[in-house]
Amino acid sequence: MTLGSIDRYAKSLIKEAGHKIRVSFFNTIEIDSKADANDLVTNIDREVEQFFISRIKRDFPEHRILGEEGFGDDIQALDGIIWMLDPIDGTMNFIHQKRNFAISLGIYVDGVGMLGYIYDVMLDDLYHATKGEGAYFNDERLPKLEITPLTDAIIGINASWVAPNRYINNEKIIELIRRCRGTRSYGSAAMELAYVSSGRLDAYMSMRLSPWDIAGGIIIAQEVGAVATNMKGETPGLLGQDTFIVARPGLHKDILTNYIRLKG
Amino acid sequence: MTLGSIDRYAKSLIKEAGHKIRVSFFNTIEIDSKADANDLVTNIDREVEQFFISRIKRDFPEHRILGEEGFGDDIQALDGIIWMLDPIDGTMNFIHQKRNFAISLGIYVDGVGMLGYIYDVMLDDLYHATKGEGAYFNDERLPKLEITPLTDAIIGINASWVAPNRYINNEKIIELIRRCRGTRSYGSAAMELAYVSSGRLDAYMSMRLSPWDIAGGIIIAQEVGAVATNMKGETPGLLGQDTFIVARPGLHKDILTNYIRLKG
Repeated sequence: MTLGSIDRYAKSLIKEAGHKIRVSFFNTIEIDSKADANDLVTNIDREVEQFFISRIKRDFPEHRILGEEGFGDDIQALDGIIWMLDPIDGTMNFIHQKRNFAISLGIYVDGVGMLGYIYDVMLDDLYHATKGEGAYFNDERLPKLEITPLTDAIIGINASWVAPNRYINNEKIIELIRRCRGTRSYGSAAMELAYVSSGRLDAYMSMRLSPWDIAGGIIIAQEVGAVATNMKGETPGLLGQDTFIVARPGLHKDILTNYIRLKG
Repeated sequence: MTLGSIDRYAKSLIKEAGHKIRVSFFNTIEIDSKADANDLVTNIDREVEQFFISRIKRDFPEHRILGEEGFGDDIQALDGIIWMLDPIDGTMNFIHQKRNFAISLGIYVDGVGMLGYIYDVMLDDLYHATKGEGAYFNDERLPKLEITPLTDAIIGINASWVAPNRYINNEKIIELIRRCRGTRSYGSAAMELAYVSSGRLDAYMSMRLSPWDIAGGIIIAQEVGAVATNMKGETPGLLGQDTFIVARPGLHKDILTNYIRLKG
């Protein structure tokens, strides 16, 4: 099985899953909450994850799957081929807005990201990349990102990180948002990674993301020259939650060096 | 000239302007800044405003026009028929993202909003309303907004109002964003008004908006039962800048009473 044929298979699967999600709006969606009251999940998140898993297990029985809803494998190490899947990234948007959510998928071989996908389901926009072969927005090759100074940058950051929080010094974040051109917040890490990769945002950061939120997007971002790390400047962890920042080359260093002060 | 015929005329004009904007991406866009370095304007904002004005002046010579780019009339009072126009609301998104901006238009008769339009140019989505006759998302009637408690609400608010600022006590805003379900920021007041009107956001607020940012959206929002005021709870001023909040019925009162403390 070549990477190219896995790529074609994954794209086809994603499009089929997207269709299932769009059709789901004709029926009543059941909403539950998970860890906290605002950590939402629906029957559709679960059904779409199970759809992916049943297909992957049937067609690639040796591959493992790490899925947000927990129907996949118990992944303790990154050896072999692992599909890292968020069936609906931005579930709150899915419920409240019926738009602005994405299927996020990254396929890793021995811990190295090889194939990345972010599918904006309602716009039918697929961002995708193969390691070393560039990134695409649908059929259009995404250009390498150029350097942008902070004063011209739009940063994706949620208001909650501007308020006092247990992860970072928020006074420095206040300095950051005053210095940059503007801020936005879309409520889907995958969508914001796709926006950085396509130059619509210049940076995106969050203090608490899971592997499936970023696994696909990192591969796409790196193919256009964006830098993606945790807030210590290290490769983001793919076995548990971590902090996260992705940005254009020079901007990543500027933000991390001058505006991020981790607590504890 | 009936309101219905002005409505049909306005819709046609907006769609034509939208086409001009979409075509503009084939050419180089010239960018200038206005009051401050991040208050951007392009040749396209100016050309689209002039297109609207030339048509309106030709076909409705007795109507007046208040436009963001200043090519319209010098409006000191709200008597007669006034078109309040933002040719591109969300110019920063227009430049950086080539999406997430809108044409915003409100038509007022002796100070009363009669016809409102928000046109998401890239999605070809038109939100529109006629006073007393309901609001529409394209051809679909928008339902009346139901009551949502703050704990279930998504609030459109920019991170800059969570940082200390000269307009409001930001400590109370921090309480607000901790209490609500989540926050978003899209960078276009018109788009965020359209999102409140269609139930995708439950509230939207900003401390500094101009009449053309909100003139169209207020009319649409009121037709679905949203409440739109300045931060004092008064009708927003349409002759100059003002604070602004729009929200579902009970939520508007909750936020204004319990979380907004104006300075000075």
